[in-house]
Amino acid sequence: MSEHTVSAYEEELRVLAGKIAEMGGLAEILVADAVKALTRGDLALAKRVIPEDRRLDQMQREIEDAAILVIARRQPMASDLREVVSFLRIANDLERIGDLAKNIAKRVIAIDGQMISKKLTVGLDHMAEIALQQLNSVLDAYGNKDDALALEVRLGDDEIDALYTSLFRELLTYMMEDPRNISQCTHLLFCAKNLERIGDHATNVAETVHYVITGEMMDPDRPKADTTSLERVALPG
Amino acid sequence: MSEHTVSAYEEELRVLAGKIAEMGGLAEILVADAVKALTRGDLALAKRVIPEDRRLDQMQREIEDAAILVIARRQPMASDLREVVSFLRIANDLERIGDLAKNIAKRVIAIDGQMISKKLTVGLDHMAEIALQQLNSVLDAYGNKDDALALEVRLGDDEIDALYTSLFRELLTYMMEDPRNISQCTHLLFCAKNLERIGDHATNVAETVHYVITGEMMDPDRPKADTTSLERVALPG
Repeated sequence: MSEHTVSAYEEELRVLAGKIAEMGGLAEILVADAVKALTRGDLALAKRVIPEDRRLDQMQREIEDAAILVIARRQPMASDLREVVSFLRIANDLERIGDLAKNIAKRVIAIDGQMISKKLTVGLDHMAEIALQQLNSVLDAYGNKDDALALEVRLGDDEIDALYTSLFRELLTYMMEDPRNISQCTHLLFCAKNLERIGDHATNVAETVHYVITGEMMDPDRPKADTTSLERVALPG
Repeated sequence: MSEHTVSAYEEELRVLAGKIAEMGGLAEILVADAVKALTRGDLALAKRVIPEDRRLDQMQREIEDAAILVIARRQPMASDLREVVSFLRIANDLERIGDLAKNIAKRVIAIDGQMISKKLTVGLDHMAEIALQQLNSVLDAYGNKDDALALEVRLGDDEIDALYTSLFRELLTYMMEDPRNISQCTHLLFCAKNLERIGDHATNVAETVHYVITGEMMDPDRPKADTTSLERVALPG
């Protein structure tokens, strides 16, 4: 490639990386706002989150189109190709994080005005805090090509999984104690699961970052600490 | 492109389309087996489903690698490019369907041996049947480039959503009637949600088929009949 072509190519990559950063920032805001709406019972905020998800969908399509055009026109190889493929993968994960935030916001509307017990609020807030930290760190790891930070994010997912398992048990206990809690707690169970899945998507991004930097896949056998799908909860009485 | 190149290119597309069909077939089997394991309480079958999901993950990676190589080497344009992009998108949806089937299988182990009420089994079986029909139809629509069938699949998703909404209400009622049902019904709620999401992925594939054939996106404003995240269930007593 001539110098002129190389610099045009680098500019294309720079623009795409900028769009990923923008998408990441928007995804973070949607998750934070959805959880804030949930724990404060803020219906107006929940209603503002829901349509915002569309912007992430649109951005994903734009990134996909642009990345594929780059592959076709520039025929990048090796690490350059991995870089462009990472745009496709990360945009996909961020779009899904937006879906999960939107789903939390919809459930805020479902449990309209019902007070959530302080203890559950604390648990959800804590899960959301860790999930957002993970998302923030992995976007930093991506921006700075920081493999060590990406590995850290991946290991950190165990903490979210453990918090989810604990909240899952707590929510089941609440439901068993009083059937009037069942409807609300069911929505909170799905919200907690959504936060756990947001953590999984941050982990996916961490794996993509590792792949971009090293050309290698992370070991798929990472042990999972979310064991609730294998959980048998003791029944009262 | 020379005739020789064109035919090599067509052969690459043919191989990729074959891999998608193979992935689709495996995804169908995993969903069918996971649901069979659930409604029959067949632990051995559930344990066979769980590791099979890995094969779908592996196939997705292979399809992604091969499709990107085709884009870089052949620089397809217009409908050819859409065809190759569709491999990426559909492999992604099929991989996620595999994850959802695996999650159902894990929950079979969680509710180990507990009998599921006949009424709930019927509801789950019916949802699974429609979801599998949708998946099967959309894979046919893809294989035969049948836009009318793709549109039909997309419209059919409303039925799965409606079944999910109805099952969601039923499960909540069961939980309210007897707290001893809560643990099992929670897992069944997630299983039902997984089936509903499998339907969403079939819809995504339908949208990709429409895009391959026409070059246009389907209208994103399709009304959704899964309203459970907006649901306020009447509390007993």
